[in-house]
Amino acid sequence: MQVALRNIVFLFLMLKQLTLLTAALSKNSSLLNSSRAMSTMTDKFKLPQKYKGSEYTVWAEFIDLALKYKPLNLGQGFPDFAAPAHVTKNLAEVAQSDEPLLQQYTRGYGHLRLVNVLSKIYSPLIGREIDPKTEFITTAGAYEALYSAILGHTNFGDEVILIEPFFDCYEPMVTAAGGKSVFVPLRPTKTNGTIMSSDWKLDPVELEKAFNEKTKIFLLNTPHNPVGKVFSKDELEMIAGLCKKWNVLVISDEVYEWMVYEPFKHIRIATLPDMWERTITIGSAGKTFSVTGWKTGWAYGPAHLIHNLQVVHQNNLNSINTPTQEAIARSLEEEVARRDSPDCYLVSLARELRGKRDFMAKFMTEIGMVPTIPEGGYFMMVDWTPLASKVGLAEESDKYRDYKYAKWMSKNNKLQGIPPSAFYSEEHKHLGENHIRYCFIKKDETLQKASDILKTWASSK
Amino acid sequence: MQVALRNIVFLFLMLKQLTLLTAALSKNSSLLNSSRAMSTMTDKFKLPQKYKGSEYTVWAEFIDLALKYKPLNLGQGFPDFAAPAHVTKNLAEVAQSDEPLLQQYTRGYGHLRLVNVLSKIYSPLIGREIDPKTEFITTAGAYEALYSAILGHTNFGDEVILIEPFFDCYEPMVTAAGGKSVFVPLRPTKTNGTIMSSDWKLDPVELEKAFNEKTKIFLLNTPHNPVGKVFSKDELEMIAGLCKKWNVLVISDEVYEWMVYEPFKHIRIATLPDMWERTITIGSAGKTFSVTGWKTGWAYGPAHLIHNLQVVHQNNLNSINTPTQEAIARSLEEEVARRDSPDCYLVSLARELRGKRDFMAKFMTEIGMVPTIPEGGYFMMVDWTPLASKVGLAEESDKYRDYKYAKWMSKNNKLQGIPPSAFYSEEHKHLGENHIRYCFIKKDETLQKASDILKTWASSK
Repeated sequence: MQVALRNIVFLFLMLKQLTLLTAALSKNSSLLNSSRAMSTMTDKFKLPQKYKGSEYTVWAEFIDLALKYKPLNLGQGFPDFAAPAHVTKNLAEVAQSDEPLLQQYTRGYGHLRLVNVLSKIYSPLIGREIDPKTEFITTAGAYEALYSAILGHTNFGDEVILIEPFFDCYEPMVTAAGGKSVFVPLRPTKTNGTIMSSDWKLDPVELEKAFNEKTKIFLLNTPHNPVGKVFSKDELEMIAGLCKKWNVLVISDEVYEWMVYEPFKHIRIATLPDMWERTITIGSAGKTFSVTGWKTGWAYGPAHLIHNLQVVHQNNLNSINTPTQEAIARSLEEEVARRDSPDCYLVSLARELRGKRDFMAKFMTEIGMVPTIPEGGYFMMVDWTPLASKVGLAEESDKYRDYKYAKWMSKNNKLQGIPPSAFYSEEHKHLGENHIRYCFIKKDETLQKASDILKTWASSK
Repeated sequence: MQVALRNIVFLFLMLKQLTLLTAALSKNSSLLNSSRAMSTMTDKFKLPQKYKGSEYTVWAEFIDLALKYKPLNLGQGFPDFAAPAHVTKNLAEVAQSDEPLLQQYTRGYGHLRLVNVLSKIYSPLIGREIDPKTEFITTAGAYEALYSAILGHTNFGDEVILIEPFFDCYEPMVTAAGGKSVFVPLRPTKTNGTIMSSDWKLDPVELEKAFNEKTKIFLLNTPHNPVGKVFSKDELEMIAGLCKKWNVLVISDEVYEWMVYEPFKHIRIATLPDMWERTITIGSAGKTFSVTGWKTGWAYGPAHLIHNLQVVHQNNLNSINTPTQEAIARSLEEEVARRDSPDCYLVSLARELRGKRDFMAKFMTEIGMVPTIPEGGYFMMVDWTPLASKVGLAEESDKYRDYKYAKWMSKNNKLQGIPPSAFYSEEHKHLGENHIRYCFIKKDETLQKASDILKTWASSK
């Protein structure tokens, strides 16, 4: 019995020991686990591969710079003057409408009143009846139209041809879709005298080399940001020929379609023979009506191509803002009604902008810089290097000279532009280094101030 | 010489023959090419694999049905009454503001005035200072917040746990991101007497089995659409425990956070111990202010998690609508100022909805259907099968009985709901077949009409 009791006590002590040991081990292991969790938590929640390299944008950097140094801002592309009164009045009226459903979800592929008037506007321009329901989609800005078009048509490994310089979101969108960007630069063919954006040209041999059996999409941008080039019929025919030869889809970003300066004419590539079938064209209410903050855009094209955009759109947003769509629809209806009047905003804005363009080109030339005079859009590429000796390039640590120029000017002369090397692929960034992009959709007094700043600086010792 | 001449003539004829032959061949081959192009064109521009299966949505089908049969619509979730007057007035004032920049692009990650007031509202609710600039993002509706959160945190092959029934966009978003959805159903634990949404429960064993080392995200939705369940503290702790154990991110869709009916309380999972670090919480101005068409939402969480959403957002939209963000910011500031008043819309809406919920539950019960009484949100799941003998199920060709019921009722009784099997995975769709989802954020007269329709039908022979 005593042996039995001793054995029980021993067993009891052993058990107690074991419990303590287990507790200690478990504490350690939970500590271990938790420290492992802390380090793996960061790893596990890293950005997916397809977004790597998309984190930097020139906009975030230069918006921060602007907040810090408060320069006169000719950077981002939007007006600093009031949007047209009839357009903002329409939004105010929609906001206080008696129809409660105007504040609620609308049709996902496009508010009916808006796609109906878009069809009225574009059908005669394209020369065919465009079906409002199946051949249009409205999107959260042209930006989302681009995204839906690229994501909806790019399979892993597909190649997408981009013309440099390009609106900088094109490349990360292609990457996110699993595609590969192939770059063809516009090359300036003139270095003295008056340089027009039409002097920036695609090299036909370089262009042809970019196409192969993997090419899925050709991304066209006319009028072009930042060069201001309005592609000519010959140029569009060359592109169309290659796209037909290689069975390639064209995504045509035409957000500056109404800002084309006489005698140049905007030609929609979808109107070229056999091109409707392979073209998605993108437009923007923000650019058309000087309300970039309304983030309302659209795409049109044959139903089987637009279908893919609808599926992407359904996946990421489902529908867009109802009140702005209704207000834009009403505003476009008003423009349709006065289409032949000089007051029609679709023509009056270009007239107004042309004066601003000429004023900017003049003062740039007067101080010795070399502007490329744009035939469309509201940006001007300016070769700043004739004044390079006056810029404290050595004070800036950036890799590319246009970044040094842009930052030094923001800090020292309180004038901001955007460095165009941001709009080139890594291998071609040097092609953008001699230029700066200035935006001229600004009040006359803003442009006068820019002129004063530059003239004072240029004439200083 | 003559031989030489004959040879030259012969050579010339040969060459001519060869040219003709080449031309004929080339013509044939271009014909061949063009017919090949026509057939491959369709193939080449097919929807990318990741969007396959995302093309159908219940919404498109039932919106078309509504357009065709014009039923009383208790389908989609939005009010048919006016949005709060101070909110729409704010939008009207912003539209006609003297500040031109309110119509232009705003900060991409969120309009400053809006993220500032959101931080003021959520910081005390979460019990920590939430940084407006790095710990918030504003999005084109909660829908885009979900998209950015899922796309920004899912790598190829990652598993995402969804609770069934689920808001139907969750699954295609996970698929588009390259992830795999893993489903755990809420199971009704009661079949007679008054059934509350709290009677729908997760089976702890089933839930635990869903987790493994591939699990990346747990997608929570509380208050829950369509069940109306407000997850209890115990339930949230169970979920939180598993998410911590498996190092899983929680995306918490809380768009109905203000529509919770006494005595139930909304608990934010981010407030549970050690959960802030692994939670992204999503909210909606559209739901909060009864303006679903404004498509303005947000997400908040620790900066390193929100960063991924910012990158996705920069990729697909860059920024969202400025006027609605400004109007919502002003409206939220007003609510903050009257936070303790019964007029504060964040509490008055729930009070109003509770009456509508009770009215609907009463008439459903009176006709013999079995409603699940929701503790939150503005949907009611109703078991329609007690009246199955009165429904012409055989007249409808759909696969699932809830679809048959929903369509037959739209056509024959002009009353529309949404079939909840749309909110289940293929393998669990049978779990939704006995119910129909009705929306009760409708005018009292609309609900009265629904009651009349159902009562007349139920009492007919």
